[in-house]
Amino acid sequence: MRCEIVAVGTELLLGQIVDTNSSWIGEQLALAGIDSHFQTKVGDNGERIAEALRIALGRSDAVIVCGGLGPTHDDITRDVIAAVMGVELAIDPVIEERIRTMFGSRGRDMPANNLRQAMVPVGASTIAQQPGTAPGLVCPIGDGQVIYAVPGVPYEMKEMVEGTVIPDLQRRAGVQAVIRSRTLRTWGQSESGLAEVLAPRIDELDRLGHATIAFLASGMEGLKVRVTVKAETAEEADAVLAQEVTLLADILGDAVFSVDDEPIEAVVLHLLRERGLTLGTAESVTGGLIASRLTDIAGASDVFRGSIVSYASEVKFDVLGVPRGPVVSDDAVIAMAEGACRVLGCDVAVAVTGVAGPDTQEGVPAGTVYLGLCIDGESESMMIRLPGDRARVRQFSTISVLDWLRRRLVAESAPRPW
Amino acid sequence: MRCEIVAVGTELLLGQIVDTNSSWIGEQLALAGIDSHFQTKVGDNGERIAEALRIALGRSDAVIVCGGLGPTHDDITRDVIAAVMGVELAIDPVIEERIRTMFGSRGRDMPANNLRQAMVPVGASTIAQQPGTAPGLVCPIGDGQVIYAVPGVPYEMKEMVEGTVIPDLQRRAGVQAVIRSRTLRTWGQSESGLAEVLAPRIDELDRLGHATIAFLASGMEGLKVRVTVKAETAEEADAVLAQEVTLLADILGDAVFSVDDEPIEAVVLHLLRERGLTLGTAESVTGGLIASRLTDIAGASDVFRGSIVSYASEVKFDVLGVPRGPVVSDDAVIAMAEGACRVLGCDVAVAVTGVAGPDTQEGVPAGTVYLGLCIDGESESMMIRLPGDRARVRQFSTISVLDWLRRRLVAESAPRPW
Repeated sequence: MRCEIVAVGTELLLGQIVDTNSSWIGEQLALAGIDSHFQTKVGDNGERIAEALRIALGRSDAVIVCGGLGPTHDDITRDVIAAVMGVELAIDPVIEERIRTMFGSRGRDMPANNLRQAMVPVGASTIAQQPGTAPGLVCPIGDGQVIYAVPGVPYEMKEMVEGTVIPDLQRRAGVQAVIRSRTLRTWGQSESGLAEVLAPRIDELDRLGHATIAFLASGMEGLKVRVTVKAETAEEADAVLAQEVTLLADILGDAVFSVDDEPIEAVVLHLLRERGLTLGTAESVTGGLIASRLTDIAGASDVFRGSIVSYASEVKFDVLGVPRGPVVSDDAVIAMAEGACRVLGCDVAVAVTGVAGPDTQEGVPAGTVYLGLCIDGESESMMIRLPGDRARVRQFSTISVLDWLRRRLVAESAPRPW
Repeated sequence: MRCEIVAVGTELLLGQIVDTNSSWIGEQLALAGIDSHFQTKVGDNGERIAEALRIALGRSDAVIVCGGLGPTHDDITRDVIAAVMGVELAIDPVIEERIRTMFGSRGRDMPANNLRQAMVPVGASTIAQQPGTAPGLVCPIGDGQVIYAVPGVPYEMKEMVEGTVIPDLQRRAGVQAVIRSRTLRTWGQSESGLAEVLAPRIDELDRLGHATIAFLASGMEGLKVRVTVKAETAEEADAVLAQEVTLLADILGDAVFSVDDEPIEAVVLHLLRERGLTLGTAESVTGGLIASRLTDIAGASDVFRGSIVSYASEVKFDVLGVPRGPVVSDDAVIAMAEGACRVLGCDVAVAVTGVAGPDTQEGVPAGTVYLGLCIDGESESMMIRLPGDRARVRQFSTISVLDWLRRRLVAESAPRPW
């Protein structure tokens, strides 16, 4: 059973609205074990909607059309489906009554063009869920194919897809297959480096066919390795995933900092909390980004004490006690980390100083960043060179210093069970 | 000239990533006056990518393919384009050298599969912009058609589309019809408040038909009012837009803090720079977010000195000199602002303390936030109650305190010309 999605709306093509509906429907189809190979966006134009539907029906068993069911003159999805089916539209008295009642209960007069929404292609049935005025449609085509029409309003669409479309597709398909995925988050290896380390396992999975692996560069969220599994039941999929995640985490070793939704800052807060340690930061090039990310985590306050954002050199000298001299250096970053521990009264501090760009600074090229750690009075520093623009240098600095702290904290502990 | 977009990636179909690239490209095409009638998403499957390309080339003059240019085994866009062109892939020595150099400058060994990225279909040329390792491609097809291939990484894609794809399309099209828009950024009025104030002008524009207005709530970026104009030439469109922006700014008064891409933090830095004032922040509930946003602006360093992120109460007492007592209060926020001026040695400070949630704190409900300003030794405070979750409370606190500072700074100056 293959099902495509056709999203209708000129505003989608113009980029005025991002088409999150198709993404959501795509996810539901995958979870329900329905294959979906193409998604198409098309404007409010009858000929082109019809073309998109015909192409989709030429290679799939079912099509979900999303949008164009409203009451206005450019809502023509119903008309196009009737044309593709080769039938007329007829008024559905039940829908007509329901729409009249909805307007009545809101104490508003019903504009006449709302009755357009009660027009249904002959031979189609309406979807039971109707949270708004627009009814959804189930439209049989030829022998065994089907077009589902749902509104573009997200909550209306979701109710219909969950309540009618997915169960109907699964019934037609007679399948029970589900697709699930989990994600390992890593830092410290390039995408191609990860690919090389995992190549033998990827080849094996290609042969076995029960799971696939994909990579996803996600800035401050790390470099993600996603495993996707197809199985007959959710339980079976979850069991295979658990096994595969353990195996991959084993291969990747300490490059893995978490699985699924846990960001690096949550991992670090968790490790510090376990060890009863408090944290502070001293930030120059990141300008408060590290502190901001840490405090985005609810409950950060029992570990995180604060940050000295020492953007101006004088703040480094006067508040953190950095010795006067070059402020993008090993000495400076160590003094910053130690200064943060002292001023903020914390056990552990991370510090960052560097050049975000676009210009060089004190002769140091953009992308040069010094990281500092101070843990229970012991300090160390590290220099890295980062690619990319200002925003990326700041993001990569943040994840790099937090990941370094993570590695230090776990170095002497047992590995975490995923 | 018609141009379609084909976004490649199984993760797009599965809904693991929302395809914002196509939306962005769609917007650029519209602004450039290039028609775009279809956008397609397809998975990492050679046959189906080829099918999507052939269908697109059957009805359009140009296709932009986005994604699948990375170094891993599932990045096959290059191979499929070569097949559609009916040519071989050949290594491009310039690209090879560039990739080797990029790895060299980062002090990392280049995994062998990165060389896949130097393979180019015979007859295609590479795109001059190459911010990452993946080169973009311009691939001529038959008589006068063209496929552009750009990476899926948004900042790499954008640089190539702006720098090469759009100018090349406009040159080929020789078209001049352009759609342009500009945005007024506002703070301090609700969306329905703005709509009410602008209603007469919106009605007028409906009659005149030369411009449309839309509203867009954008968190920390403010509440945006977007004006869109279609005209024969860019000059004509720009002239109409300039007139309309002035008119709307006049109606909206001091709710408007900037136009187009300038965020509130850039406005504040600009106003302070003009007045020769330096800035610092004292942050509790925002946890470094204000500092982080300010330092995201290149050139912030001549105005912004730093921040004391006083997340723990003891840091407020010990570093900022806040008197011991309730730390979510008028007294505390004023002491924070004054403390920031003193410790950081700045002329102006903003301060924020409050409860981000989800839990209440010291009996104060989530969403309660105190803002503080200290300008040349004079301080004031304000209490606001914000709706929403933790992230929204932090964002709204940030824009609220910066907008308050903006209003204070411009109060005695002439209005800015837009």
